[in-house]
This record gives sequence, structure tokens and C-alpha cells, in this order.
Amino acid sequence: MNTFNSDNDAFSEAERQVIYRVMRSRRDVREFRPDPVPFEVLRRILEMAHYAPSVGFMQPWNFILITSLEIRRQIKELFEMRNAQEIALIADAQRRQLYGQLKLEGILEAPLNLAVTCDHRRDSPFVLGRGPMPQTDLYSTCLAIENIWLAARAEGVGIGWVSILDPQAVENILQLPQGVELVAYLCVGYPIEFRARPMLEEVGWKERMRLEDLIYHDRWGIRFTE
Amino acid sequence: MNTFNSDNDAFSEAERQVIYRVMRSRRDVREFRPDPVPFEVLRRILEMAHYAPSVGFMQPWNFILITSLEIRRQIKELFEMRNAQEIALIADAQRRQLYGQLKLEGILEAPLNLAVTCDHRRDSPFVLGRGPMPQTDLYSTCLAIENIWLAARAEGVGIGWVSILDPQAVENILQLPQGVELVAYLCVGYPIEFRARPMLEEVGWKERMRLEDLIYHDRWGIRFTE
Repeated sequence: MNTFNSDNDAFSEAERQVIYRVMRSRRDVREFRPDPVPFEVLRRILEMAHYAPSVGFMQPWNFILITSLEIRRQIKELFEMRNAQEIALIADAQRRQLYGQLKLEGILEAPLNLAVTCDHRRDSPFVLGRGPMPQTDLYSTCLAIENIWLAARAEGVGIGWVSILDPQAVENILQLPQGVELVAYLCVGYPIEFRARPMLEEVGWKERMRLEDLIYHDRWGIRFTE
Repeated sequence: MNTFNSDNDAFSEAERQVIYRVMRSRRDVREFRPDPVPFEVLRRILEMAHYAPSVGFMQPWNFILITSLEIRRQIKELFEMRNAQEIALIADAQRRQLYGQLKLEGILEAPLNLAVTCDHRRDSPFVLGRGPMPQTDLYSTCLAIENIWLAARAEGVGIGWVSILDPQAVENILQLPQGVELVAYLCVGYPIEFRARPMLEEVGWKERMRLEDLIYHDRWGIRFTE
């Protein structure tokens, strides 16, 4: 029996272009409209997260939907505190000023916050494939987060990842048990706009690197030539 | 001026279905045909990786294309050694037997291996948003890996993540410098098939969990009710 069926369920050139368009037009969003995201939309997005690959099929993720304004205010306060510390670390005055002008989160404006966590305890003690690289449960959770980001873009929903937070403080607020780790704190909502380019590129913080410079052959530092 | 343009470049229902189909039909592939993947296909896949989000737009990833049979043989040996140790850890005899029957990598059959690395040194000392959560550079690299996986599926190319390896030994073989970390070792090639379900689900290793059980509201453990 010929088991080769990789052409079943193949994607056409036009379909590939749709998939590439969602990847190219995905943005980190920090400016939101207040309109709520309907639960059926949110559910489709989380369903796609749940289809992400995971080491040993452990599905280590949980999704905490945060609607409480009280909790979001506490998180916003953590952001303010930590962001002030971050600014102080920037040696160059011009970059420090630019940093100060950037809007880096939408915790209170977004109608929803979403914490994505990794449960290190799931399926313990033995997870197929995790032993030699224990961080692969965290990595699996990140694969799910990229699916969230892309599915949200397909739904016209913006996602902004807020990393300028003391993670332990967030874990305390969300009452995560021992063994469960915060991976991402996301703002979720309909955006004011999807920018044509990443905001940090647009304001001159950093350029997109050349892909060719990032590809090596067989060993680190050996340029790949076609 | 009304800057709201989130309906520009929106995705239709049919387009969303394409995007969801690629997420649903993506698989961890361990059985490959020997046919090489043309470079232009590979380049499109890596271009999508490069469009992934990254903390502070740091783009911490590199892609090492491994075609050398000699290097792949060394990696395969690492797998064999480590896999033998893993099997010995499984307490339950039936699961140990099942594990032993699983094909968990395609290092030598796949025409290409791909190591994805994270360069912790990039843009140092100050990366916008990384300070409070230093692992976000690794996490960003994982977001790029999910784009690889999805773009590959769109191109009919299979990806298999091999985590049953001593990462330091792989880093030595690939001559990664200090400050650069291996995140994923992937096998890349045209698959014998894209299975309808994940292999670990198909053979009864683990079921897909119920999404509803993974969604909480405002705090850990509080079930979300619509």
C-alpha cells in the first residue's frame, strides 16, 4: 500500500499567500478600542492555541481571561513601577527620551487581558521528550502563543505582549500554584489600527535585520550559499 | 483624522478557514521522503520565521541549515544515547514497551536538519522589554519556530522537533559561541504523510485535553462561564 498522501489536503498557491499575509500583517498592538471581543471569537482563537504542538503532547498551557478592572489596575501599577526602572537603565539620552515616548502596553484600554501559563507539573513525572530539554514545556506554550497571535490577526483582533512586569508579582496576583509559571501577559482587543510596520521599526528604534545574515550552513558562522 | 483602519486588510471568513486549516493539519513529522526541499521553498519558510514577533524587535534567532551527513550522524548518535536513558525512566512496563515502538526522529532520512538558536547577546546590554523577563528572547525564538512549522505545512513540508538530545553536545557540534543557545533541533523534508491526528494521540499515549478545562477567569482555578 502506498501510504504517501502528502498531497491530500495540500494548500494552493493562493491559500499559501493568505497564510503568509497573516504572518506578515500580525502586529504587537498597544492601542485598543473598548469594544469587547465576543466569546465565540475568543474561543476560536484559543482553540487554535490548543492545536499548537507540544513536547510529548503534554499541552502544558492554561489561559486566564482577565476581565476584572481591579486586577488589571494592579497589573498596570506593576508595569508603571518596572517601566520606570527600565528607563533608568538606558545610557544614551536620545534613546532614553525615545523610549519614554513609546506606548508599551494597553492593559486598561483593552477590554481583555490574557495570561498564558505553563504547568510544569502536567503529566509528571515522565513527559516524552522533555527530560533532556526541560524548557520544552515553556517553548511549547510559546508555540501556542504564536497561534493565538496569528488567529487573532485573522479575526481582526490585536494582541500586545507586556513583558515589563515583575513576573512573580503577576503570579501572586493571579494566584498561580507552585509549578505553574507565567509565560505571557497579553492585552487583547480590537486595535485602533494594524500598523504597516512594527512600531519599533517605524520610530527608528531598530531596523529589521537581513534574513540572509541570519542563515548559516552546518555550523555557526558559516554563510549559506545556494 | 480618524486613524481607525483595522478593517483594511481584513481576512474574510474563507481566508480565516485557510489559516485555521493550516493550524489544525500541522503535524510533528518523523517519516520523510528523501527528496530535497528546494531552496526557494526553504527561503519562504524562513522568511515567515523572520516575521515573527520578538521582544524589543531584537530578532534573536539564527537558522543553521544542516546538510552534512557527518554532522547528522553525530546528532543521531546523541539521540540514540539519550533515548536509551529516557526509556529506562519509564516505570510502567506497558508504556515503556509502547515508547520503544515509537519513531521519534528522522535525523538521517530527512534531507535537511535545521537548528534554530537564540543569541542572548544581540542588542545587548539593553533590549526593550527583556530585562524583567529575560527568557523572552528564547520565547521570541519559539514564536519564530511556530511560523516555520505553519509555513512549512502550507508548503507541504514536514517538520519534526527532536528534543531527545543533550543540548550542550549539540551546541558543541554546531560550534555555537558563548551566549548563543540551541532552542530547537528540527528535521525538515517532504513527509510520507501528514497524519490526521498527532501520532501520540493515535497510538494512545495521550489524549487531547478539553479546551474548556484549560480556561480560567481572572485567577487560577476559577472556571470561566460565558
